[in-house]
Amino acid sequence: MDIVCKQSELNNAIQLVSRAVASRPTHPILSNLLVTADEVTNKISLTGFDLNLGIQTSFDATVSQSGAITIPSRLLSEIVSKLPNESPVSLTVEELSDNILLKSERGSFNIKGIPSDDYPKLPFVESGTSLEIDPSSFLQALKMTIFSSSNDESKQLLTGVNFKFKKSILESAATDGHRLAVILNNDQDLNLQDNSDDLKDSDFNLSVTIPTRSLREIEKLVSCKSHENSIKLFYDKGQVVFISANQIITTRTLEGTYPNYSQLIPDSFSKVFKFNKNSFIESLERIAVLADQQSSVVKINLNDDGYASISADAQDIGNAEELLPVTYSGEKLEIAFNVKYLLEGLRVISSENVLLKCNLSTTPAVLVPDDNITSFTYLVMPVQVRS
Amino acid sequence: MDIVCKQSELNNAIQLVSRAVASRPTHPILSNLLVTADEVTNKISLTGFDLNLGIQTSFDATVSQSGAITIPSRLLSEIVSKLPNESPVSLTVEELSDNILLKSERGSFNIKGIPSDDYPKLPFVESGTSLEIDPSSFLQALKMTIFSSSNDESKQLLTGVNFKFKKSILESAATDGHRLAVILNNDQDLNLQDNSDDLKDSDFNLSVTIPTRSLREIEKLVSCKSHENSIKLFYDKGQVVFISANQIITTRTLEGTYPNYSQLIPDSFSKVFKFNKNSFIESLERIAVLADQQSSVVKINLNDDGYASISADAQDIGNAEELLPVTYSGEKLEIAFNVKYLLEGLRVISSENVLLKCNLSTTPAVLVPDDNITSFTYLVMPVQVRS
Repeated sequence: MDIVCKQSELNNAIQLVSRAVASRPTHPILSNLLVTADEVTNKISLTGFDLNLGIQTSFDATVSQSGAITIPSRLLSEIVSKLPNESPVSLTVEELSDNILLKSERGSFNIKGIPSDDYPKLPFVESGTSLEIDPSSFLQALKMTIFSSSNDESKQLLTGVNFKFKKSILESAATDGHRLAVILNNDQDLNLQDNSDDLKDSDFNLSVTIPTRSLREIEKLVSCKSHENSIKLFYDKGQVVFISANQIITTRTLEGTYPNYSQLIPDSFSKVFKFNKNSFIESLERIAVLADQQSSVVKINLNDDGYASISADAQDIGNAEELLPVTYSGEKLEIAFNVKYLLEGLRVISSENVLLKCNLSTTPAVLVPDDNITSFTYLVMPVQVRS
Repeated sequence: MDIVCKQSELNNAIQLVSRAVASRPTHPILSNLLVTADEVTNKISLTGFDLNLGIQTSFDATVSQSGAITIPSRLLSEIVSKLPNESPVSLTVEELSDNILLKSERGSFNIKGIPSDDYPKLPFVESGTSLEIDPSSFLQALKMTIFSSSNDESKQLLTGVNFKFKKSILESAATDGHRLAVILNNDQDLNLQDNSDDLKDSDFNLSVTIPTRSLREIEKLVSCKSHENSIKLFYDKGQVVFISANQIITTRTLEGTYPNYSQLIPDSFSKVFKFNKNSFIESLERIAVLADQQSSVVKINLNDDGYASISADAQDIGNAEELLPVTYSGEKLEIAFNVKYLLEGLRVISSENVLLKCNLSTTPAVLVPDDNITSFTYLVMPVQVRS
């Protein structure tokens, strides 16, 4: 292998694909990046893969001799990031050698690599189901649900976000058992195609649950690409592949049937309160200082006098109360929540006002934006408080 | 106690004094801040004290009733930092009560405090030796030495920086046994005064060693105050007190005679090399990537061909070499250093070029700025390398 490329392009590619390199790999080669060079296309391709998540990117270079090698990811990343910006960098590997010679203007580095033959293949899926997704809608769906997924590895399917693609609708949902975030994007031109033989009807739909850890990386990638018109998605046999102009991300999906969350959302609510979102967030952040000393429980007392009292008690430490202007006419209600769940839901809502809908202090409440733009529902279970 | 003050002023004062609050206090009251209010002067004073380091600051407020109380530092800090900026905040404590009522525009907080009687007194030293120091010279002295002090608590005196005040000279030094940083500031108008009876001669000098941990806080404080003309320093019985317009910092000193470091610095050098400082730093940072894989040792090969070779070897991982332009005529020399020590010394030097002076590959080398502005000497012990 013999290539010359720009420091900045090599550096960007390394930073990108090293996100898929495991911090504690099960096999030495998995702490390496795969570098391949093609003298016909004059392209270099870099791959990081932890057996669950895989990222591949390619860019233009001067390739005098094709080849492939794997290079320790962290070492290569540190060296290249410190080389002078925009200066040319050459990488040379002799035939049948695993020694990489990296040269820049000023000096040279010899790094011991591992032959590429042992590097696992990325699971390319280009059969099965394919569809096109709009990067900005997908990104919104991700941001508004991902925080509600569970961090508890034993909760399996709940450690991911569920996506349902159906005609022009993308429905995304995540829950950790205490709260649930659901968003509907209606304006998708999904361009669904099913290449498998056994499913040809027009009522086709696809439900996949993607691990949160993979989604955090996909989120970063899609964020950079949100000016592109579409990203292609392929699904087959427990693998999802996202393909954009010069990048490929593959991820294992979480197998199983995602819980039927829609049955958790009450059909109707007897009490609906309207708050200013930012005022609500600021009050909760202050009250949270006291709440977080013990149980993280914040109490909301709703009256028809135009104010809601938001309060928290921390025994032997202190207590706090604020009054928040609220639009409401109806019966009094005292309801308590984990303040963290409320804040996380409110922070992803972009509308000026928010509606809090509930029935009893023991039944699920929902937060929804007070606009007609986003179809977002955030369900939170109240906390029982002894009075 | 009954006071009203601005959120921003209270918040700044809390952030400042809480630096002196221990993270794991030996007694509950030491995790609190002392707040005192004086209705005669209309001033509030806040104090944090971990028995070694003490910080006190005061600011104007409306004091309706004098009083004193201690309040949990972290809780108060979190609450006040989240209150609306510039809005008024009131603090009220009933007579004989330890319950603080904090009110802002929107809501109220009750916090349980501890009576101020049990809070330890700051060691005010206003007798003994006093002198005035120039904040910017003192800050420079601090920045150029503090990094060389030892982190190893068993090294006692070496965990601090030694300051020698003598006539118009401030000499500061720190060493951890592997390297030594010394800076002389000549243009001090120290205004030395010795109020004790037993020392009246004009040849007076003061040597104090101040713990690095205290100095890091003093550095922050002096940084904010560097536009002031002078800071007063008092020293007596193992305590140093720094006094500026409205702040007081007290710190215990490290007792004992600081090592006679000047005898470590060779009188003459047979080899002197001149480098561009930034190029040297950048090369070392790249070579350090390889060096830090194992021993952190970097080798410098000096020739009279106009270049120095900087290299590192990490067995089974790789090696690296760069050529750095250097001004030198003389014998060849190979000398090796811990790359961290070289980099830390170079980073505090502000001159464009740096001189590396040495005799043998086994005797101390020094780095000095190639200018006539700063009298700074950074001594580093070379590392023995088997060839």
